[in-house]
Amino acid sequence: MRYTSAAIESLIEEFAKLPGIGRKTAQRLAMHILHQHTDEVEKFASALIDVKQKVIHCRVCQNVTDIGADPCAICCAKGRDRSVICVVETPSDVLAFEKTGQYRGLYHVLHGVISPLDGIGPDDIGVKELLSRLSPDDGPRVSELIMALNPTVEGETTVLYISKLLKPLGVQVTKIARGIPVGAELEFVDEATLSRALEGRSAL
Amino acid sequence: MRYTSAAIESLIEEFAKLPGIGRKTAQRLAMHILHQHTDEVEKFASALIDVKQKVIHCRVCQNVTDIGADPCAICCAKGRDRSVICVVETPSDVLAFEKTGQYRGLYHVLHGVISPLDGIGPDDIGVKELLSRLSPDDGPRVSELIMALNPTVEGETTVLYISKLLKPLGVQVTKIARGIPVGAELEFVDEATLSRALEGRSAL
Repeated sequence: MRYTSAAIESLIEEFAKLPGIGRKTAQRLAMHILHQHTDEVEKFASALIDVKQKVIHCRVCQNVTDIGADPCAICCAKGRDRSVICVVETPSDVLAFEKTGQYRGLYHVLHGVISPLDGIGPDDIGVKELLSRLSPDDGPRVSELIMALNPTVEGETTVLYISKLLKPLGVQVTKIARGIPVGAELEFVDEATLSRALEGRSAL
Repeated sequence: MRYTSAAIESLIEEFAKLPGIGRKTAQRLAMHILHQHTDEVEKFASALIDVKQKVIHCRVCQNVTDIGADPCAICCAKGRDRSVICVVETPSDVLAFEKTGQYRGLYHVLHGVISPLDGIGPDDIGVKELLSRLSPDDGPRVSELIMALNPTVEGETTVLYISKLLKPLGVQVTKIARGIPVGAELEFVDEATLSRALEGRSAL
């Protein structure tokens, strides 16, 4: 059953294409849009277009940035430790690390992980761009590469691949600790995490 | 903490303005948009604009319709019983009734209910337009008005107001039954609904 307006139906279909939004929620969102002021809706529409027209990958770290702000704000920032690079999978991961307020080094965004099943090889995830950053003509030499990929099979494969590739270059490659999340109870932590936590134990 | 792209941040803010969508979901949606093809995103953006530019209220029933399709598809449809009008609050309510496949009469959408606290009076909800439909110069006379408003204080007030207004006109005004939903268990039905169900009992 459809609304008596084709324009509303089109908008519902567009909303329903978004992840996690079903037909019912899409209807509610479309009705909300219908009741907004025209200039508000135009702002929304141009924000959509802008994101496709203005967003590029930073030429240094491959993180998202705007045209005219390349290299990105983090790569240009003063006071950051340029000898450490944290390798992550997505721009959202950069955000997660920035939220900690602990990390002051640079980043490198792979935009994916090696996944032979999906036909994604090392060339598809910007490993070449990462390598070129490790021996810069100017600026300080990179001393440590922190691998912060998701603990999936593909993530671990990528960590292994990159660490083997970098061994001859003399760059120290580390990976972030797997263990018990802060606030979790031992009783409810799964076996895999618990054995990783045991392996990664540290002296007091 | 923000993304390193102002365009992405703007889009996240726009998504987060939608009802039921928080900052985290908005981030996920913005990232999804970033990975879509440009023409897909342009289709979404123009669907947003279209809904504001093309959607109008049907001059007969006040339901939503497109410019160039006024009166709306339901008002124009042949084979509908033009002597019965179902009065509802929103276009979504029309959709709900159409889904039943039972009702073959016409509709009238009030786009609101009388709510003195919010400063909404009879003039704001198109009661005048409803009255003008009851004594048409051409076509059959309306014999029944089915009030199908939400069972809130404001809804009941509106039902009462309209029924008193129409008494002199000799139009029969009915309201849809309040009672136990199909599939519900008596044990868990609230008292108000149960006493309404008792009041509205019918002979077998």
